[in-house]
Amino acid sequence: MILVLKQGTTREKVDDICKWLSDSYGVQTSPIFGSGTTIIGLVGDTSAIELEAVEMHEAVERAMKVQEPYKRANRKFHPDDTLIKVGGVEIGGNKICIAAGPCSVESEDQIKMVADMVRDSGAALLRGGAFKPRTSPYAFQGLKAEGLMYMKRARESSGLPVVSEITNPAQLELFMEFVDMIQVGTRNMQNFELLKELGRVRKPILLKRGFANTIDELLMSAEYIMSGGNQDVILCERGIRTFETSTRNTLDISAVPVLKSRTHLPVFVDPSHAGGIAWLVEPLAKAAIVAGADGLIIEVHNDPKHALSDGQQSLTPEDFKSLVGRLRPVAEAIGRSI
Amino acid sequence: MILVLKQGTTREKVDDICKWLSDSYGVQTSPIFGSGTTIIGLVGDTSAIELEAVEMHEAVERAMKVQEPYKRANRKFHPDDTLIKVGGVEIGGNKICIAAGPCSVESEDQIKMVADMVRDSGAALLRGGAFKPRTSPYAFQGLKAEGLMYMKRARESSGLPVVSEITNPAQLELFMEFVDMIQVGTRNMQNFELLKELGRVRKPILLKRGFANTIDELLMSAEYIMSGGNQDVILCERGIRTFETSTRNTLDISAVPVLKSRTHLPVFVDPSHAGGIAWLVEPLAKAAIVAGADGLIIEVHNDPKHALSDGQQSLTPEDFKSLVGRLRPVAEAIGRSI
Amino acid sequence: MILVLKQGTTREKVDDICKWLSDSYGVQTSPIFGSGTTIIGLVGDTSAIELEAVEMHEAVERAMKVQEPYKRANRKFHPDDTLIKVGGVEIGGNKICIAAGPCSVESEDQIKMVADMVRDSGAALLRGGAFKPRTSPYAFQGLKAEGLMYMKRARESSGLPVVSEITNPAQLELFMEFVDMIQVGTRNMQNFELLKELGRVRKPILLKRGFANTIDELLMSAEYIMSGGNQDVILCERGIRTFETSTRNTLDISAVPVLKSRTHLPVFVDPSHAGGIAWLVEPLAKAAIVAGADGLIIEVHNDPKHALSDGQQSLTPEDFKSLVGRLRPVAEAIGRSI
Amino acid sequence: MILVLKQGTTREKVDDICKWLSDSYGVQTSPIFGSGTTIIGLVGDTSAIELEAVEMHEAVERAMKVQEPYKRANRKFHPDDTLIKVGGVEIGGNKICIAAGPCSVESEDQIKMVADMVRDSGAALLRGGAFKPRTSPYAFQGLKAEGLMYMKRARESSGLPVVSEITNPAQLELFMEFVDMIQVGTRNMQNFELLKELGRVRKPILLKRGFANTIDELLMSAEYIMSGGNQDVILCERGIRTFETSTRNTLDISAVPVLKSRTHLPVFVDPSHAGGIAWLVEPLAKAAIVAGADGLIIEVHNDPKHALSDGQQSLTPEDFKSLVGRLRPVAEAIGRSI
Repeated sequence: MILVLKQGTTREKVDDICKWLSDSYGVQTSPIFGSGTTIIGLVGDTSAIELEAVEMHEAVERAMKVQEPYKRANRKFHPDDTLIKVGGVEIGGNKICIAAGPCSVESEDQIKMVADMVRDSGAALLRGGAFKPRTSPYAFQGLKAEGLMYMKRARESSGLPVVSEITNPAQLELFMEFVDMIQVGTRNMQNFELLKELGRVRKPILLKRGFANTIDELLMSAEYIMSGGNQDVILCERGIRTFETSTRNTLDISAVPVLKSRTHLPVFVDPSHAGGIAWLVEPLAKAAIVAGADGLIIEVHNDPKHALSDGQQSLTPEDFKSLVGRLRPVAEAIGRSI
Repeated sequence: MILVLKQGTTREKVDDICKWLSDSYGVQTSPIFGSGTTIIGLVGDTSAIELEAVEMHEAVERAMKVQEPYKRANRKFHPDDTLIKVGGVEIGGNKICIAAGPCSVESEDQIKMVADMVRDSGAALLRGGAFKPRTSPYAFQGLKAEGLMYMKRARESSGLPVVSEITNPAQLELFMEFVDMIQVGTRNMQNFELLKELGRVRKPILLKRGFANTIDELLMSAEYIMSGGNQDVILCERGIRTFETSTRNTLDISAVPVLKSRTHLPVFVDPSHAGGIAWLVEPLAKAAIVAGADGLIIEVHNDPKHALSDGQQSLTPEDFKSLVGRLRPVAEAIGRSI
Repeated sequence: MILVLKQGTTREKVDDICKWLSDSYGVQTSPIFGSGTTIIGLVGDTSAIELEAVEMHEAVERAMKVQEPYKRANRKFHPDDTLIKVGGVEIGGNKICIAAGPCSVESEDQIKMVADMVRDSGAALLRGGAFKPRTSPYAFQGLKAEGLMYMKRARESSGLPVVSEITNPAQLELFMEFVDMIQVGTRNMQNFELLKELGRVRKPILLKRGFANTIDELLMSAEYIMSGGNQDVILCERGIRTFETSTRNTLDISAVPVLKSRTHLPVFVDPSHAGGIAWLVEPLAKAAIVAGADGLIIEVHNDPKHALSDGQQSLTPEDFKSLVGRLRPVAEAIGRSI
Repeated sequence: MILVLKQGTTREKVDDICKWLSDSYGVQTSPIFGSGTTIIGLVGDTSAIELEAVEMHEAVERAMKVQEPYKRANRKFHPDDTLIKVGGVEIGGNKICIAAGPCSVESEDQIKMVADMVRDSGAALLRGGAFKPRTSPYAFQGLKAEGLMYMKRARESSGLPVVSEITNPAQLELFMEFVDMIQVGTRNMQNFELLKELGRVRKPILLKRGFANTIDELLMSAEYIMSGGNQDVILCERGIRTFETSTRNTLDISAVPVLKSRTHLPVFVDPSHAGGIAWLVEPLAKAAIVAGADGLIIEVHNDPKHALSDGQQSLTPEDFKSLVGRLRPVAEAIGRSI
């Protein structure tokens, strides 16, 4: 940690601050006296020092951390890629994993049918929403527990492990029983109460980036889960909110290589929510693959026109099949497979 | 609702769409044939029609709603200002209400002392955090239930009604017993599960705007609570996330008059979190008042340098006293009082 | 164009507005009377009607255009891809074009050497800055006319057509003589005086997106040049400003397919400025290719450590060579070549 | 300046870097060896060192400047407020200055009439656009030189000094003759060629913040003008681009106190462009005053409904008169006058 002191701070004052820092936090201090500005470097364990607390000091202009605040998620301390098993599917290796399925589970028949079709086209996981976080209280809120049960049955009939979104810590027992991976949606990335609960279980977590959260905040949310004991976290870039309104969100494609450099955790991309429209799924999925994504999560609906939610961004099973056919050579061009 | 059709859509196709719309949704349709573009106006109850569902139609280029999706929060249907009682304090009238207190409750003595001091300086409510949503799992997370209990005791000793932030539906019973107003923090504005629970109780809610949510999304979140039955919602602007990094957030001062025009609910402003630094509280608080805010929520700590959280943006009780002294003439200049 | 009227507008008032619109603008009007809201559809040539002018009417709540305001750049009126010749190089066809070279031209020897090396590695154009728009007045501002002259000599020695950035209409004569394509930088995308001048010449323009401009504003800036008579405009996505600070800018990869759908003009991507750091060039360049870009513009410097500007994001000629080797199979995977 | 080195950098390597830095830039170096990370503090004149150049070094992870890059605009070196004379009007003192007038000058009679009316209501300066930067090439572009001439005549008849926007360095001679203050618009804040020209003249400059530029970038643009010799720069906050679409821009009210703390230059606010709608002018103007603004620039049009540009955000002269009447007590509440 580095402190930049205010102009005109006397040597005596600098000594006082150094003493205060070493007494309060047990760190060593190295002041550097410049012509106009004095800075103090702090050596030792500074993880417990909050920037704000130090910046409160009357002589401190600014404090800066030079080390990342995340440890368990940090590639520096875990240089090798983490592989995570979801059902029998391994994520984070050479093979790119595709999770596909409808935004909302609508019936047992529907989810079973979609499951079989996406499996035959190359999907390794089945996605489907049962508890739906909707902006309007008047919109369809999902089939809830019933939807999860249908997901489980679709897993049995299709053989695909399933992933679904949790929206309340109170649902955790249900999710432990019915799904293979628990998704944390974009609006809950900083629902820390939920993250703490997920840190206590043994089940892989698909953690989606908040639409207005930085890459480092995403890593801190992963850290919440991992510091609780659950190391199986998969991160997912799904578009951020910007001034551009031509697309529902702006896919932050750079987040993929940046995340891969900062963390050992696998990284997914959701091209369906990022673009918000079906015909954008293909270019964004291809971009995600060559940028280094370990997986994709794609909305596929048997009848998008009559979908109860997000039909606009869903592919038909036929579209999905031909999409995967065009994604394979792209993956192969960078030495990976689907 | 208006549908813009794709170029080259035939008259026959337009008839088909009109039939489909009236059959599916029971609305009347009025097509307008332009030179290049045809549009269809929909008349009747369109609240159940989702834009996405209609935009899925192969001939529809774009669909637009012309009415606001919020009803109970909408000033059009409730032209008069809503007044809300919190303890014995009336909010939303001519008198501007100030809630003051520490970011985190740290001890019973501390919160009692701060309560007395801010009451004597003109605060009408006591704020204090017991359950703290922190970005890092390694940071102080609040005194939790114990903190709420201290808040209640400070209410008894000071006479000030109290407000504190909830972070999990499971805490609701505690909050019903210990506080006079329940705060929903910026990271939970779209925690719809929490909002639904808060719609079922009879206790005023202070709903803070998500740092990356639009004004209309804030109103939709109020609608979640109100559609559940709880009409006592106070909105709070607290700064949004932008590209500017000189301040912690960018206070969206225009949100105050825009909200006052769209809704009958009272509007607060939090100048402490918006600026993120103590010396910005004064100019932002003054701006909030003249822009039309019904209340302010300000961080005051007995010893900001040693605060366990957000000390940097806290005022001392002495600072707060002199601040209120300078806010009074500003309120009077626009015909209000504090 | 559609007008949404204020609640409670009488039939008589609606008739007045319709008369005013047809008298003032020669358009036909079709009112649709809903239960709460009345809308008026306008048919005819509405391109001269400004939204603001119409919204001034006391009975109008909102006005919306349903047609894009750009005509010459609009794919609807020019369905086929436009091919543009720069020197002997054709842009916009199956072959992806790479422009490479240093941020700033530093000497004749340097630019000639880099030109030969990038040509041998697969670049089709040479880029190099002579007039540099720098945030600080104390930073290196480029070699100016001398730099352009060196560019011309590097064209002669290497055979590569050259592109360089113009920053002032007064430089136009120089650029007409020395370069094959004139670049408009991100800070000048809405320098309309400059755009008007460029509309009068016969020279291809590389128009970079403003870092805070929407896709539609980029198309309107292209329209400025094209409405002046110069149809040879190449658009370039180079990253936008968002709240994320891990990368210099956020590459808006979706802008590539969105632009390709809205306009017939070729689209380039600049992965060097988008990421702002050399190791991000590769994943972003690959993403650009599979998202549909017609070209890339990449910074290559013989000695990045000692570059006078933007060294951090520059590749060495060796890095560039091996990069192109890895881009080729990616282009081939989608049926294109480099 | 501080360099954070990569993990595992050897002592030997650190010595090399220190030697390289002192040889190349003549600065002193102070390495601090932490447990995991080593940092180097640089003492001396680091203004010529570019962050990018240093970050190119293979052992450097990050470089940070600890001093502001602006000197002439910096309050640290010029603690007293700067007062600027425009015509006979002093700006930057206790009296708040209002510049009022139409977005576009439309005729000699119009501008003279508006000038007289706004002067009688309390305006100290007359604003009016002659060269209009418009997003669409098909929109009204202003009366140009003729418009400036009418401004000059309105100055003669009304006695109000005039301000108008320049869009091209080639117009400078005209502006030197016809106006009292030259405005740089939001789209030209980083038109460095224009800024350099304005640094050479002796005429006050009203520099508007770019809608996507940071406060520090605004100060760097002021530095461009001031480093050229012209010290009379007035800054103007006019709203920034964010994700919120309810207002045309988001007025960054915090920018006012932040600018006043960082620079000695006067600060204006433009509430008309920030909100984009007439009824928002009043709350935003009041907020600007209490936040510390030295002046306001407000659009007033004799007939907003028929204005050739931006009518939607213009006040009538009558509205303006009553607005000023309500602004006076607000200014007095903080000890200032209008």
